[in-house]
Amino acid sequence: MSDYLKARLPRGLVDRTPAELKATEAMIETIRHTYEIYGFEPVETPLIEYTDALGKFLPDQDRPNEGVFSFQDDDEQWLSLRYDLTAPLARFYAENHEKLPKPYRSYRNGWVFRNEKPGPGRFRQFMQFDADTVGAPSVAADAEICMMMADSMEALGLKGQFVVRVNNRKVLDGVMEVIGLAGDDKAGTRLTVLRAIDKLDKIGPSGVRDLLGAGRWENPEEKSGDFTKGAGLPPEAADVVLAFVASGANSAAETVANLGKLVTGSVRGSEGVEELKLIASLVDAAGYADRVKIDPSVVRGLEYYTGPVFEAELTFEVTGDDGRPVRFGSVGGGGRYDGLVGRFLKEPVPATGFSIGVSRLMAALRTLGKVGVEKVNGPVCVLVMDKTPEALAGYQKMVAELRAAGIAAEMYLGASGMKAQMKYADRRNAPCVIIEGSNEREAGIVQIKDLALGKELSAGISDNAEWRASRPAQKEVARADLIAEVRTIVEAAGGAA
Amino acid sequence: MSDYLKARLPRGLVDRTPAELKATEAMIETIRHTYEIYGFEPVETPLIEYTDALGKFLPDQDRPNEGVFSFQDDDEQWLSLRYDLTAPLARFYAENHEKLPKPYRSYRNGWVFRNEKPGPGRFRQFMQFDADTVGAPSVAADAEICMMMADSMEALGLKGQFVVRVNNRKVLDGVMEVIGLAGDDKAGTRLTVLRAIDKLDKIGPSGVRDLLGAGRWENPEEKSGDFTKGAGLPPEAADVVLAFVASGANSAAETVANLGKLVTGSVRGSEGVEELKLIASLVDAAGYADRVKIDPSVVRGLEYYTGPVFEAELTFEVTGDDGRPVRFGSVGGGGRYDGLVGRFLKEPVPATGFSIGVSRLMAALRTLGKVGVEKVNGPVCVLVMDKTPEALAGYQKMVAELRAAGIAAEMYLGASGMKAQMKYADRRNAPCVIIEGSNEREAGIVQIKDLALGKELSAGISDNAEWRASRPAQKEVARADLIAEVRTIVEAAGGAA
Repeated sequence: MSDYLKARLPRGLVDRTPAELKATEAMIETIRHTYEIYGFEPVETPLIEYTDALGKFLPDQDRPNEGVFSFQDDDEQWLSLRYDLTAPLARFYAENHEKLPKPYRSYRNGWVFRNEKPGPGRFRQFMQFDADTVGAPSVAADAEICMMMADSMEALGLKGQFVVRVNNRKVLDGVMEVIGLAGDDKAGTRLTVLRAIDKLDKIGPSGVRDLLGAGRWENPEEKSGDFTKGAGLPPEAADVVLAFVASGANSAAETVANLGKLVTGSVRGSEGVEELKLIASLVDAAGYADRVKIDPSVVRGLEYYTGPVFEAELTFEVTGDDGRPVRFGSVGGGGRYDGLVGRFLKEPVPATGFSIGVSRLMAALRTLGKVGVEKVNGPVCVLVMDKTPEALAGYQKMVAELRAAGIAAEMYLGASGMKAQMKYADRRNAPCVIIEGSNEREAGIVQIKDLALGKELSAGISDNAEWRASRPAQKEVARADLIAEVRTIVEAAGGAA
Repeated sequence: MSDYLKARLPRGLVDRTPAELKATEAMIETIRHTYEIYGFEPVETPLIEYTDALGKFLPDQDRPNEGVFSFQDDDEQWLSLRYDLTAPLARFYAENHEKLPKPYRSYRNGWVFRNEKPGPGRFRQFMQFDADTVGAPSVAADAEICMMMADSMEALGLKGQFVVRVNNRKVLDGVMEVIGLAGDDKAGTRLTVLRAIDKLDKIGPSGVRDLLGAGRWENPEEKSGDFTKGAGLPPEAADVVLAFVASGANSAAETVANLGKLVTGSVRGSEGVEELKLIASLVDAAGYADRVKIDPSVVRGLEYYTGPVFEAELTFEVTGDDGRPVRFGSVGGGGRYDGLVGRFLKEPVPATGFSIGVSRLMAALRTLGKVGVEKVNGPVCVLVMDKTPEALAGYQKMVAELRAAGIAAEMYLGASGMKAQMKYADRRNAPCVIIEGSNEREAGIVQIKDLALGKELSAGISDNAEWRASRPAQKEVARADLIAEVRTIVEAAGGAA
């Protein structure tokens, strides 16, 4: 067969191993429990939606359908793989709102897809875990979600290593008004300003200033690499934006006061400041002021946010690409999107939500050593010493008995000899192997080899002959005692698979 | 806004509610536990594969890419949504075989997709739960998987209501040889014969005979509806096929003897009979002969099977479309596919697997009332009687305290009055609501209304005035005692959400 196919995982996708699956499941279970304590209920939508229902709300993506996997069905209707969990929730709520409690609190985790160039940490299929409250106009709903995120981080063992930062798009709109960027015709410039601010963490204030002005080179010092066109603001307008970004103070009261001054004269801006004040007071009353903080530098890259926006940031340091320590950074975020559900209905529907990047958060837990990496015990292996139908039937009976006793067990199914079978058992991390040749069968006995104990003992034996003579950790027992003996070994090894 | 979008779930897809999600999760957890007892480990592949890796193995589907959702990525490579979990496993094994234990036992559950006309019980996204053993040439691996299926069904509470039926494609190939359908040039006719037999349950022996001969009308009596072209076998050849299908006897030994006679002279056929004999002996030794049975009428519609094929059938009766009782039927199946992994490697790789249709099995459990349908307790609701920032902060503190005590709780977030809030609490199945107006706040007390008890009591009260006077199940407690009092009510109502 020379014309065989090459087996290859498509770019930007991953296969998941048992250890990863178990760690992710445990993490999701912890988050889910926190959400249920907050009164959120699960709901799940399919991975495919009609393309028109998804809208064009990808970050850094202004061209329709760019970045999305789309295809036609047998009726020639355009379908797409969802690129986030918010757009499908908006569709679900709009379609079912008459049956749902109002406000409607729900959560879901699932795969989302992006048709873009994959890169380090950038996948084409990845998992999000979202929580949303639809139908609640009060920013008390936003405050609640931020506190729920804080509790989720603590439940995952991240106490003291994160902050949930909160800002408000209305305040930002107020700043825009003040610098003369109000009005529908300035929407494009406003989005450019917003995305410039969103890069603060990566490029610092001077980089943001370039993007607010004429533009920025990828390598500013040599003026080389890609050039990103800027918003074209005059320097005094850029000053106001940068003052806004830097207006975070030690206390929420002080920050709110700073913001109030910046947006003086803008009704919308002042409304945003009042909302931040209410969020701060609710957070404070519930005892979360040290973990949920007002921070004007948060903007989020998505166009559809209409009020509070938030970001969960891990504050511990890791080594960055340039070898210098950097904060681990964002593991999720969200905000209020009062316009998104309304696209489907005749009236506007307020909504707010938070999305956790599951792989990114898992990477953080792994960095901190908070993900179980202990070797899981494999099944007990019954070796095949003899391939007659009678012998096989006997081995099969042993594994059936072990399984019925709740002990993970298997009969070796390969075609190989004793040595390969032992290697297999070792690779599976079997607590012990069962050996029954024809002599043993006739005598009504079996050999049990305790692999963990065997490794321990043989570590202290250097001589081959001595090893053979001592037969470390191998035991001859009556066939009738098999289950009881194996149970003792499995329990000593820390339980079954 | 007159140009709003219509919110609609695409055809053939479903949204899943909390009750469905919890029931499915519980079912999957039970199956998973059984698989792990058998020594199978989890592995998960992405939902997208390169189109060429998937092959053209859809049942009833001979045209390439028909039935599959395919699209091009930014590099113009063709990708497809997986239509089963077997083809991706073959790709995964081929790509990683050097690192994997051999034989490699694994399981996975996940979504698969079909681009076809949806119908009743026919979805475009549905879930499969697969287990496979790759690298084991012996049919002991097939026997093991069949027993594992039997244990899974019993673990789900289906004891005595199912049978795992086993056949062998090699025996069928022997029958084909005997009737002159050997050879590559007859592959198309063989597939037609196979699919005719696969319809036995639905159309009976006379229907199968039509499909083995000239063909069959959708409504045979009136010769109307669609006409399906048959295999064109002469009547005596059709007789042999029908004798084969009907050769199942009470004991495995008898069935195997019948089959042996039918394939006399075919080396491949006799090999298949020997394999069935070994499976029967292993199954018998392990004590599964009453649940795993040799049955020549099982063929499975897929072309790629090369040896044993199996099907898990539920034997209890339900009312069919025509009002008459019918067996519930298949909830999964599989078989040996020794050629599928080999497509990617330079040598053939033996493999066998079983796939459970998750929705179909869930439907069966629901029919039998084996899926929990009890109403789940919702969160405790703290009503908003007063919207001043101070009052809201107080309510927020209450829910924070309740949550910290492990009690699911929420502050009402809507804009509505008392009546709507009570209705909401009822809809969420809240065990109780907390009421604190300004009078209560000043006095340091709260009102707790036990909703379950309230319903019980008010069922016995017919007069409105009497109801108001007795204030059923409403209790005034000190604010400091709130948590303890609520805990008592939540526990009486059967625990928190």
